[in-house]
Amino acid sequence: MRQIVAFDRVSADGYFAAADGGLGWVVPEEELDRAAAQNLSGSGTILFGRRTYDMFESFWPHALDANPHAPGQHSPEIRAMAQWINDAEKIVFSRTRTEVPWRNSRLLPEFDPREIEALKSRPGNGIMIFGSGSIVSQLTEHGLIDEYHFIVAPILLGGGRTLVSGVPASVRLDLVEATPFPSGNVRLRYARRSSSPPPPGGG
Amino acid sequence: MRQIVAFDRVSADGYFAAADGGLGWVVPEEELDRAAAQNLSGSGTILFGRRTYDMFESFWPHALDANPHAPGQHSPEIRAMAQWINDAEKIVFSRTRTEVPWRNSRLLPEFDPREIEALKSRPGNGIMIFGSGSIVSQLTEHGLIDEYHFIVAPILLGGGRTLVSGVPASVRLDLVEATPFPSGNVRLRYARRSSSPPPPGGG
Repeated sequence: MRQIVAFDRVSADGYFAAADGGLGWVVPEEELDRAAAQNLSGSGTILFGRRTYDMFESFWPHALDANPHAPGQHSPEIRAMAQWINDAEKIVFSRTRTEVPWRNSRLLPEFDPREIEALKSRPGNGIMIFGSGSIVSQLTEHGLIDEYHFIVAPILLGGGRTLVSGVPASVRLDLVEATPFPSGNVRLRYARRSSSPPPPGGG
Repeated sequence: MRQIVAFDRVSADGYFAAADGGLGWVVPEEELDRAAAQNLSGSGTILFGRRTYDMFESFWPHALDANPHAPGQHSPEIRAMAQWINDAEKIVFSRTRTEVPWRNSRLLPEFDPREIEALKSRPGNGIMIFGSGSIVSQLTEHGLIDEYHFIVAPILLGGGRTLVSGVPASVRLDLVEATPFPSGNVRLRYARRSSSPPPPGGG
């Protein structure tokens, strides 16, 4: 069974995006980027909500284009991330977009938990989801996310969007790891507690 | 200068209270209770928003009353907490309450940052604030909280109330401590970065 991992930068006061959706508040951390780049090869599919897809699509397809003003600006970690994300299979949930021209993207107009279950049971590498709060919430409600990786930044945003909302029942997790990094970021890794099965039915 | 410490239980998805305000989701942890009980003696004043005061007032004044159905039910940590919180000076911000009969309580109808500054500059022990999201947000906006202690529970609430909201600028913190506990709670301690001074004026 393929595993789904939600990976998110969050602020110390619990927001994954500022009110305007921006990520300018993220506290950079080379050591974290290196660790993330090393883990990419284990995943082959990314799930996206529409807003996160829009944001990623505006950056990553062109991230490695030559920039005459800043030649050689990209770290090896950014290059590895760009290569991986452009190559990965991308599944985009959106009712408003009609096309997803970024390479290896596929559009799904509706969120259907049975489709995700089918995706998980097919052979393949891990599945990741970044941001995409509404999709993370629906996946969480149906017990379909196996691990949550939060990078907690040493900052209070003072407002913004929470990652999970509208989920009717709480979900107990097991703490897998709590690792502080030099810049003050903390990586918290949780696994969904297997003794709390997903609700029956679903869909 | 007296220090103000905000102390909060938060869920892994960033909420400090369920939608109904309840705390039934907290994951109990004896080791944490012991550590908290040992630190109480350093504080003598507690700030409260109205909702948190209501909740605390319904429990702590009677927490040590004899219970014929469960004699000797209280742990030493709960007894120490009850003694401390009943004795402490309690400052309650509320426009709707007219009386605060719980021992050593004082009512302030308006939040005025200059009053808090004056309180901090008088001699005395540390000042704590639990929950009280609207007061924490106003204190944060005025740069008046020195440390934030979050106990992150291994649970996704799926919705609820965030601790800090409506603060117009982000606040950079320094990570002081990231400590995992056996039940999966993680204590994150942050200090307000001194290089980001509070905004001038205020009030």
